[in-house]
Parts: sequence; structure tokens; C-alpha cells
Amino acid sequence: MTGHIPHLYVEDILHSGSALELTQDSLHRLRSVMRLREGSEVRVFNGRQGLWRSYVKLEGRHHVYLGVDCALKEQPHVMNDLTLYVPLIKPQRLGNLVRQAVELGVNRLVPFRSAYGGGSYTWNGSRMEGVVVGALEQSGRLLLPEVCKPLSFEDVLRGHDSRYPLFACLEHGVGEGRMMWKVLGDFLQGRKASIIVGPEGGFSAEEHEWFQEREGIHPVSLGRYILRSETASSLAVGMWISSREGF
Amino acid sequence: MTGHIPHLYVEDILHSGSALELTQDSLHRLRSVMRLREGSEVRVFNGRQGLWRSYVKLEGRHHVYLGVDCALKEQPHVMNDLTLYVPLIKPQRLGNLVRQAVELGVNRLVPFRSAYGGGSYTWNGSRMEGVVVGALEQSGRLLLPEVCKPLSFEDVLRGHDSRYPLFACLEHGVGEGRMMWKVLGDFLQGRKASIIVGPEGGFSAEEHEWFQEREGIHPVSLGRYILRSETASSLAVGMWISSREGF
Repeated sequence: MTGHIPHLYVEDILHSGSALELTQDSLHRLRSVMRLREGSEVRVFNGRQGLWRSYVKLEGRHHVYLGVDCALKEQPHVMNDLTLYVPLIKPQRLGNLVRQAVELGVNRLVPFRSAYGGGSYTWNGSRMEGVVVGALEQSGRLLLPEVCKPLSFEDVLRGHDSRYPLFACLEHGVGEGRMMWKVLGDFLQGRKASIIVGPEGGFSAEEHEWFQEREGIHPVSLGRYILRSETASSLAVGMWISSREGF
Repeated sequence: MTGHIPHLYVEDILHSGSALELTQDSLHRLRSVMRLREGSEVRVFNGRQGLWRSYVKLEGRHHVYLGVDCALKEQPHVMNDLTLYVPLIKPQRLGNLVRQAVELGVNRLVPFRSAYGGGSYTWNGSRMEGVVVGALEQSGRLLLPEVCKPLSFEDVLRGHDSRYPLFACLEHGVGEGRMMWKVLGDFLQGRKASIIVGPEGGFSAEEHEWFQEREGIHPVSLGRYILRSETASSLAVGMWISSREGF
């Protein structure tokens, strides 16, 4: 119906003529977007070697593999270097946040724990890798973002390299944040940046002090109202990336 | 923990001293964000009379109602007039799309059926009203967006008033769309606009022709990659509204 040829992430090294065995997980993902027939085209990528054409091969009733044909696209150069600090929120909403961030082109995901939230939620690394792969396959992106282990809020700020901007998405009227869409124009030359979004309930007074005291931190506002973490994250990431990749 | 006083949408007329009986649904929503105790503050709004302070009253073990105290905020003037044409996608993703759009400040939601998608999904009006109310309560917005009945794609375009821009979010490289964030600057005086986002699979060739032939339609791109409907919608709506409401 849609005419889109599915993209599939694989871990194998890709070369013309190789046969890719499908993991249960890959098979499941492929089946959710297409009917597997002998000769159906699938585009495969491994995050390092660009995009390759392959065809479904059926052997007997149960053995499905992919025959790799040729490279269609080189691995893209990294155009952005955007780190998103991800608050630990409810798992389903966290999944949405990560999925949208990867679709939009974030390069590094760093979960963090802060005063308001994160106490009872955990970071399920393998689940999140699945979300990341699904978002890459869906969006056509070929660069695998780095997925880091959770940090404390303090370690996020201590580790921030002040030569690059860290945009702290704050509630309107807090911390004198300028509107994000206006700030974009000031950084049109920059490719490297970070964005931090708060959990439900935002940041604590102590955390706001950290933002004020550290260098290279730019408080920004996304509007007059309160956005959920995933909405704020998508808007901030989307505005930044689309203003970098645009022409 | 977060210190936010919950907002609750009610249908009643609000005046000082009135007692608001809570529907099962309102009770459920309140209980999901707070422990109901005698004297807890709840802010109530009905979409017409601004924001009012009220307090929880308990009578016996089972009767909970709200005592309305005084008005805290006037009903805001309508700053934007943004219509979002909503593709019929999978129910859960549709809910996310609508929720984020309302948080971000859309004024009118018009579901539509198009060639790629919408065949098997329906618009559950009462479920969507619940999603809308939840998003208003969470974001602090006081204006109830209008929720319309589904239209066909053709009726959306036939009904479009060409004095106002309709931004059609197209895949990159299709229909010569300019980057949305660049287009914003051309319309800084305008408050009335519409945005249309495609379903999974985008728009058909015939639908693209409609976009080209009608007046007042601006094809826009949100970036080089393929975004899911809800991600595209949030980014386009968020960029438009935050560039209107910003200061």
C-alpha cells in the first residue's frame, strides 16, 4: 500500500553476495511491516556501512534469510552531534520519548535521575535498544545513536563540556529562558549541543541552582504551558535538528 | 512531590461558593494525580470562565465534592487559531498525537480519511474527548479545542479557506516543501493557519496533485527522514504555536 521498502537493522558485516540469517527478533519486525515472499526487497543497514539492498530467500517452509545484493547509500557523515539527557519517566512514555528522539535524529541518549521522578522507574537498556532500532528502521536513519547508562543529575552537569551549549528546557517564566525557536538562530554554525528535559514536575530548586552556576548552560522555554517530558523533548530535539539539517 | 496543584475540567458553571459534584470520571482523574483529602486545593476550569480555586470536601466516607472559592485567572483570549487535520492511524498512536497536539495548543482537531491509511481505523469521539481533557488538565491550558467529525481528504481541501495558510507536511524532496522552521518567519503576523500531516505511508500521487492545485497550500518539510505521523504533527504544531506565543 505505502510502497515503502522496509529497512532492517542487522549486526552482520555487509557485502555483496552474503546471506544474512535472521534472528527471531528481526523476523518478527519484518513480518510486522510486510509479507515475506521469495524475492521481496528489504534494505539492510548495520549502523556503519550505509544502506544495502537485499532480497528475501525462502528455503523449505521455515528457513528465511536475506541475500545481500549491493550497496545503495554510503554511511552518512555525522551532521549533528546532539546529546539528549532523558528523564526517567513511566516506561511507556519513556519509550515514546526515545522513539521520537531517534526518529528526529538524536546522536546520544543519556538517561538521568533527578529529584522529581526517576525514583521508582528504571532504565531497561535492552528494551530501549529495541525502541532505538525500531525508530531507525522506520525513519530511514542509518546512524545508530549511542545509548548510555543512567547518570545522576549532578554527574550530567559536572560532565558537561562548557565549550558547547546545553539547552535546559525549563517551564515558562523560570530561569529566564528565551524561547527555543528564537535561540536556534544564534547557534546556526554549531553542530554539537545537548538538550536536557525534566521529568514530570520539572526540576527542583537545587537543580535550578546548578543550571545557573555552571557555564555553557542556556535555559530555554518551549511555550507558556506545561508540556509532558516526551512532548517537550520532541519539540526541542526536532527544532534543533531540523534547523541543522535543513536547507 | 511536584508541588503542582491539579487542574480539573468540569462542565458546571463556576461561581464563588458553589459545590461541584464530581463525576466518576473526574474522581478517577483526580485520584490518579493526588490523594483526596479534606481541604486539598484543586483548580477547576470549564473552558469558558477561566481558572478557579476550589477545595476538596469530604462528607461521610463516600461523598466527595469540590467547594468553589474564587477565580484565579480570566479566560484567556484566543491567541492562535490553528486547525490540525489528523490522519486516522492506530488508536494508541492517534491518542498520543491528539494529546501532544492539545498540550501544544491546537484549537481545532479535524480527523480525515485518505488513500494510505484510515481504511481500518475509526475515530472514537468520546475516547478522544477524554484524551483532550487529560491534555488540557496536564498542560494548564484553559481553552477547549473543537473536536470535529471525520472528513474525507477531498472535503478537507475543498473546505480550505485560501486566505489562510494550510501547511502540508510532506516527505523531504516531495512537492518542493521548504523547511518548516524557515517558513515560520514568513508568517509572523498570522494567527490563523492549518496543518495537515499524512498517515503512515504519506499521501498518494492524487493527493499530492490536490495540494498543488489548490490555493493557499504551503508544502513544508520537517527534515530529511521519515517521521511517524505523531512525531511530524508534534513538531509542526509545536513550531507554529511556540513561534506565535513566544516573546
